[in-house]
Amino acid sequence: MVRHTVAFKLKHAAGSAAEKDFLAKAGELASIPGVAKFEITRQVSAKNPYAYGIAMEFADQAAYEGYNDHPEHVAFVRDRWLPEVEGFLEADFVAL
Amino acid sequence: MVRHTVAFKLKHAAGSAAEKDFLAKAGELASIPGVAKFEITRQVSAKNPYAYGIAMEFADQAAYEGYNDHPEHVAFVRDRWLPEVEGFLEADFVAL
Repeated sequence: MVRHTVAFKLKHAAGSAAEKDFLAKAGELASIPGVAKFEITRQVSAKNPYAYGIAMEFADQAAYEGYNDHPEHVAFVRDRWLPEVEGFLEADFVAL
Repeated sequence: MVRHTVAFKLKHAAGSAAEKDFLAKAGELASIPGVAKFEITRQVSAKNPYAYGIAMEFADQAAYEGYNDHPEHVAFVRDRWLPEVEGFLEADFVAL
């Protein structure tokens, strides 16, 4: 199992319609085949520069790559992520 | 619910006895009252500078603070974390 996560902050103002729309669109990634336990959360540690987190799980590396290459994910990264995200850090976790 | 996470890398060489001992000691944090779904994982994204992750969940902020202030956690941070960890980033996630 691979737990894929990303912490990020948006260019949009907190509470703005643009922020809300981005988060709603990001939520649609949950329907891409292979994605399990999808969640979008608020990052609240003052020791961390990011405002949100997205996390999901894949059965294995092949399922993860299938998601990564899926046209809906590719389009989301191109059309929404790159233009609207100010900064982010990905992290992927597997069993020790 | 608060999901408390930290990604980190150790000063110890990969596969060393010192690394193994640190991870075993970190695992004992799971027994501190209030800690749920404790896990230590390997961080595998090449886009992230850290080698390991620890994650745990607390019912609420009070439970989180109880863990943070618990003598066993305080001693672990002082005696193991600060001297043996080369770098880390905490992130705490709550529902949107």
